Amino acid sequence: MFRSAVRVCARPVLPLQQASRHFASATGPQFSWEDPLNTKSLLTEDEIAIAETAERYCQERLQPRVLEAYRNEDYDPKILEEMGELGLLGANLEGYGCAGASTVAAGLITRAVERVDSGYRSGMSVQSSLVMGGIHEHGTEEQKEKFLPELAKGKLLGAFGLTEPNHGSDPGSMETVAKPHPTKKGYYSLSGSKTWITNSPIADVLMVWAKLQETGKIRGFLVERKDCPPGTLETPAIKNKTALRASITGMIHLDGAPVPEANMFPHVEGLTGPFSCLNSARYGISMGVMGALEDSISRARTYALERRQFKGNPLAKYQLIQKKLADAVTDAAYGTVASIQVGRLKDEGNAVPEMISLVKRQNCDAALRNARILQEIFGGNATSDEYGIGRHVANLFVTQTYEGQSDIHSLILGRAITGVQAFV
Amino acid sequence: MFRSAVRVCARPVLPLQQASRHFASATGPQFSWEDPLNTKSLLTEDEIAIAETAERYCQERLQPRVLEAYRNEDYDPKILEEMGELGLLGANLEGYGCAGASTVAAGLITRAVERVDSGYRSGMSVQSSLVMGGIHEHGTEEQKEKFLPELAKGKLLGAFGLTEPNHGSDPGSMETVAKPHPTKKGYYSLSGSKTWITNSPIADVLMVWAKLQETGKIRGFLVERKDCPPGTLETPAIKNKTALRASITGMIHLDGAPVPEANMFPHVEGLTGPFSCLNSARYGISMGVMGALEDSISRARTYALERRQFKGNPLAKYQLIQKKLADAVTDAAYGTVASIQVGRLKDEGNAVPEMISLVKRQNCDAALRNARILQEIFGGNATSDEYGIGRHVANLFVTQTYEGQSDIHSLILGRAITGVQAFV
Amino acid sequence: MFRSAVRVCARPVLPLQQASRHFASATGPQFSWEDPLNTKSLLTEDEIAIAETAERYCQERLQPRVLEAYRNEDYDPKILEEMGELGLLGANLEGYGCAGASTVAAGLITRAVERVDSGYRSGMSVQSSLVMGGIHEHGTEEQKEKFLPELAKGKLLGAFGLTEPNHGSDPGSMETVAKPHPTKKGYYSLSGSKTWITNSPIADVLMVWAKLQETGKIRGFLVERKDCPPGTLETPAIKNKTALRASITGMIHLDGAPVPEANMFPHVEGLTGPFSCLNSARYGISMGVMGALEDSISRARTYALERRQFKGNPLAKYQLIQKKLADAVTDAAYGTVASIQVGRLKDEGNAVPEMISLVKRQNCDAALRNARILQEIFGGNATSDEYGIGRHVANLFVTQTYEGQSDIHSLILGRAITGVQAFV
Amino acid sequence: MFRSAVRVCARPVLPLQQASRHFASATGPQFSWEDPLNTKSLLTEDEIAIAETAERYCQERLQPRVLEAYRNEDYDPKILEEMGELGLLGANLEGYGCAGASTVAAGLITRAVERVDSGYRSGMSVQSSLVMGGIHEHGTEEQKEKFLPELAKGKLLGAFGLTEPNHGSDPGSMETVAKPHPTKKGYYSLSGSKTWITNSPIADVLMVWAKLQETGKIRGFLVERKDCPPGTLETPAIKNKTALRASITGMIHLDGAPVPEANMFPHVEGLTGPFSCLNSARYGISMGVMGALEDSISRARTYALERRQFKGNPLAKYQLIQKKLADAVTDAAYGTVASIQVGRLKDEGNAVPEMISLVKRQNCDAALRNARILQEIFGGNATSDEYGIGRHVANLFVTQTYEGQSDIHSLILGRAITGVQAFV
Repeated sequence: MFRSAVRVCARPVLPLQQASRHFASATGPQFSWEDPLNTKSLLTEDEIAIAETAERYCQERLQPRVLEAYRNEDYDPKILEEMGELGLLGANLEGYGCAGASTVAAGLITRAVERVDSGYRSGMSVQSSLVMGGIHEHGTEEQKEKFLPELAKGKLLGAFGLTEPNHGSDPGSMETVAKPHPTKKGYYSLSGSKTWITNSPIADVLMVWAKLQETGKIRGFLVERKDCPPGTLETPAIKNKTALRASITGMIHLDGAPVPEANMFPHVEGLTGPFSCLNSARYGISMGVMGALEDSISRARTYALERRQFKGNPLAKYQLIQKKLADAVTDAAYGTVASIQVGRLKDEGNAVPEMISLVKRQNCDAALRNARILQEIFGGNATSDEYGIGRHVANLFVTQTYEGQSDIHSLILGRAITGVQAFV
Repeated sequence: MFRSAVRVCARPVLPLQQASRHFASATGPQFSWEDPLNTKSLLTEDEIAIAETAERYCQERLQPRVLEAYRNEDYDPKILEEMGELGLLGANLEGYGCAGASTVAAGLITRAVERVDSGYRSGMSVQSSLVMGGIHEHGTEEQKEKFLPELAKGKLLGAFGLTEPNHGSDPGSMETVAKPHPTKKGYYSLSGSKTWITNSPIADVLMVWAKLQETGKIRGFLVERKDCPPGTLETPAIKNKTALRASITGMIHLDGAPVPEANMFPHVEGLTGPFSCLNSARYGISMGVMGALEDSISRARTYALERRQFKGNPLAKYQLIQKKLADAVTDAAYGTVASIQVGRLKDEGNAVPEMISLVKRQNCDAALRNARILQEIFGGNATSDEYGIGRHVANLFVTQTYEGQSDIHSLILGRAITGVQAFV
Repeated sequence: MFRSAVRVCARPVLPLQQASRHFASATGPQFSWEDPLNTKSLLTEDEIAIAETAERYCQERLQPRVLEAYRNEDYDPKILEEMGELGLLGANLEGYGCAGASTVAAGLITRAVERVDSGYRSGMSVQSSLVMGGIHEHGTEEQKEKFLPELAKGKLLGAFGLTEPNHGSDPGSMETVAKPHPTKKGYYSLSGSKTWITNSPIADVLMVWAKLQETGKIRGFLVERKDCPPGTLETPAIKNKTALRASITGMIHLDGAPVPEANMFPHVEGLTGPFSCLNSARYGISMGVMGALEDSISRARTYALERRQFKGNPLAKYQLIQKKLADAVTDAAYGTVASIQVGRLKDEGNAVPEMISLVKRQNCDAALRNARILQEIFGGNATSDEYGIGRHVANLFVTQTYEGQSDIHSLILGRAITGVQAFV
Repeated sequence: MFRSAVRVCARPVLPLQQASRHFASATGPQFSWEDPLNTKSLLTEDEIAIAETAERYCQERLQPRVLEAYRNEDYDPKILEEMGELGLLGANLEGYGCAGASTVAAGLITRAVERVDSGYRSGMSVQSSLVMGGIHEHGTEEQKEKFLPELAKGKLLGAFGLTEPNHGSDPGSMETVAKPHPTKKGYYSLSGSKTWITNSPIADVLMVWAKLQETGKIRGFLVERKDCPPGTLETPAIKNKTALRASITGMIHLDGAPVPEANMFPHVEGLTGPFSCLNSARYGISMGVMGALEDSISRARTYALERRQFKGNPLAKYQLIQKKLADAVTDAAYGTVASIQVGRLKDEGNAVPEMISLVKRQNCDAALRNARILQEIFGGNATSDEYGIGRHVANLFVTQTYEGQSDIHSLILGRAITGVQAFV
């Protein structure tokens, strides 16, 4: 799969300065500010190849688009198709047209995408981890065969509907409900509202979590837009976002949307279903945000070397600047090592959700904190969107809040550490 | 002056919930989260009246405009005229149509404006502190009489041109130059570029600091747009800003712009001139950012009381939320008390620039830090621009960088504390 | 009162470098790193005189003793007598041999003492604010006349018994009980244990808070050591403390200690009694810790100017050092201004307890945070106790935990801000 | 070697709760607050066995001694002999009676020791990394054979003399000098002073770095106490330390101390020599401080579960407490993973000194920061030395300052990142 991916991509592509800096094989050990703990040494050859493909694609095809996309809140849905062509979607899933790569490899893809923009990564995470991952884990064989190959190609677009307007950190209180369809036999009828749903306005298939009326338990449904009569499904975009403007976000309004029983996940009940999907997405975020942080470092370092103040010294010469860079580089290295470790444990079957809470929280917090501090290096110039740093800062704040706001993960960890819950 | 201001404003104005909360006279002491150290008790009646006028105007006339203005980077130049009508411009200056209020009063006006938006406050600060304040301090009697009354009314708009593309924290290295005009007798010819100039695209008079060729020393010039032949003065707007989008910012390109000798400040040479203007503006910022912080607190508190998660508890019930609020409220109170103290010293002639560095730095840093933490309370909803918190966060970052980036003020303080400079 | 205090002290005292630096009257405004916001300008002449007396005494008489006292956990009870002679005890109380100075003046005394050591200040706070203040506020006329004059002279030593081994932040759950004495008519019998009681091993009179058996309500009792038969009152010292080693701390074990009814406070019931005492003490802490911070600044600044590393530069020349000093100086200035404001409100009858929570928490946190950062300037030399900085750091941690740990004050503030309690 | 170590230790030892908790093999993955990222899975069986031996020894033999040792500044030199018996000294060195274990294994030993006390670990680090490591790397075959076996047994005690009273962060400016001995042929004569030298008062052999007079270059000398005539070598202890009181620290005064030429390191010149030793020690510190942090977590967690406040809830139930624990646990996990990665790179020959700067700085800073925050959980009880937390906090501050103060490592990293130095 990836062999062809590499080939597809390799043709029109010039060697990227960015990519080559990242994966240069040096003679003799030396310090690399881009990989100071030499995490490349922890990767397999396949993983390195996948990462190179992803980095190249992202730098060549996404980087040139992001400035305008973010300015204008204009997401190009072809991006997912391009990623699909390269095998970058659902890359860690087995079969059904997926690459079957490692969890770490999938993480390296998210890092490559988020090095360009967290919004692009969000769009991909929804498709790969939440929708494809959810179907792969909870779907029937028929559901898998019907949806996964097209999702993997990016020809079918997915969205994941869990969060509701009044229930963010507490999805267990959701109000969306599924009941037997009053007129269509063998169908459920879904009603309710979801919000902050990445990709919802462009999604063909929406994985919606709703309470089954007869049991009161949460179940998962694959809502197909093409089968919803007018007025039963609306997915208006949310505009004027303060961040993640290069991704498309919307609501899902269901008003008696018909869903065949065959589109319900057969076994999974309660929050187990959505949480297992989120777990996989969260892992991707933990690695993804390291990309945004690394790009922030790269931009700040370049700026600090080029900008001169006071007797012609580059900013890089000043202690207060060096400390900011040293802190950021260190946190990026630590986050990457930790995330790789969790990926390995996941593939060995030795991971638990709290480990993912741990790296998701810490890496999002560290990426945000450091990006903000690096932004100071740009002074007033950070106000120009062309330096890109303001975009990362705004985006990273959102990564800290979604798929488990950091405080919530603190309490998940606190519960695991002490055996006592402190949510209420 | 303010009596009429109050009258002008009082007529069409309904009692504001916001304003009344702020200045309610309670029976018996009680804790007010909006003024926890009862700083109102430090104000004179006049100052309270001025603040009320300003708060009312800002809440009634500016607040409804800011969302769209920020979205679309669309600054309404009438705002300065409205402020002028109320006597809010250059309010602490004596004579020439200015209100002659205290430094603290002027600070309370900036706080009222920045409670709505830092961009609006920036536009006003430039007019009031930098341009009017500069002319008042350094101008000839003729310059004062010619410019100040119209600037005070907001009928003439000003800009302040110090920062250059390659010289931000280090203005002493500026490249803009003034030399005798080659053809127009009694005129200087100015050439060079300034950037990040608030109001430049709409300004009628631009206070430009340039090196006088014959002496190599920095002098101040009042460039009048109406007198500049085509091609000698251009002031393109900078668009796609990541913050302060409700203000208008641009460049100043001078290419042989003619300025009569009578428009040069007569005595002040070197950085003393611009720095004395900045000093006054920085004081206003120190108080202004407290407004943005207080509005962030107010919004976060409201959200925390209304938003319910986990068994119907409002967010306000959770310890992690309360700590964020307590920290922010405390820093707002401390910043206000400190700023009032510096204002008093200024009016007594007992202030030194380092005091202003101290409150400018601390208050900007505290406002930004706390606004960011308060933003967490909103979770994903912070991404909606209608909650306003993201705007404050983005704006406050800029206040930390302009008129002396925080690190620069640290080094100014460090030098004053130790007697040793660490700039280079 | 203070006039004689000044005289008593003035005789044997040489002008102190420390004191003179603090209160020098400069010609023309200039930046003072010791008082950067010129808070001296907020003081009355009397307050300045009182502060000078206190500073002189502390620097001349306490400073030379503290190193050995801290090393050996050896508190000299004569200190309180010396302070009494100078009128420094209960200085803000009216009558009964007290100086009747302002709240701010009393705060300046605590600051002077804590500039030397937080332990010395703790010993004085207990005597002045908790014991004397408590009797002054809640005692009968007889109690006041009997105890206050001797306490003011430091000839009678007091302790304040509230905290119990199992009840720190939650004194309402106390277990100490008072019941009618089984044999002595007109007496109560007190039983229970108190811990972390400053001065308990040397106290002559112990203000003990206990639940009155018949009502279940908390009442205050003045336990006189001389009247307790052997075995009914024990006050063992707690040794091997990690901080506040220059103060003496102990437990109070009561086993049927007899207390005459006349020694119970007549009206106050519940936590109102101890909390009003604590309020006054907390105010003193808010000003006191500024003294410890200012001394830390002074020591760090001196070290940074004298210590040379890398090409003979003093440490003070380095940006990372200057930032530490600038931050600390700023926080000391802010804390002082805020504390003075609360003192003024207190004397005007316009203070509420939450204001004191606010300044106590913020100033303790700021003093501790900055002292720790200043400690870094000393590098390995901080390990030598002769530099004094490690002592301040260790002490200041305790100030953060006693009389309301910072988190508790956060929740007090959070409750006041939101109207919702989050203690449980 | 370790097989016998295990045997020696295994005999008198009961299974330790602490040790067993650490290395329990659970059925099925589960979250362990003691090893949340399952770093045990990264260790070899040998490494696990070594760690178990070390943990058992430390908990059984060191833990009971530390309280009194710290109180009284009383270091028991037999400790090194006990460690030697178990093969814990210089464990990663090959030959000469050393265990030849991995770098990570040696790190696990330091972690076990520092779980008890940073002072004990300091004493061991000096012996193992600085003295034994230095001789192993720079010594002649004769020097190795003469010194290493006895040092490995802990029968010969070593000290490392680099830092001078006036030269801490900048050892290149050292003043200690070696010149040909005026009377003893084939001998150098060393004169100068070293300070803050762990173990100096009890050391038999002191590795002293001095400038060779004839070249001006720094060289390393093995000064044997037994060969120094009275008056030529003095090693007074430094008492009244504010931290690391369970280790012994002193000065080294050399006044014409005779050192045979055979005791000079043959090839290494300049700062390369001491820096290579420090590199190894720093690695050990990076892992060691994780032990102190983990013990702080364990103590705080226990306290939070046992201490009840407000309606009988354990402190562990409160959100503000859980966040402190979650943060600490996360940083401990990250630090451990990162340190293991550097250890692996070191053994593969792929490490560079900046990597060690990176983990030394980050882990010391994180351990200190978190231990301080955990200390807050204890409230006033932290003042009792029996809770142990105050000791860790005081110790960890020193780890941040020695073998490269954190700011210095920031600048080392900054230089590596930017290519520009900012030391002066």
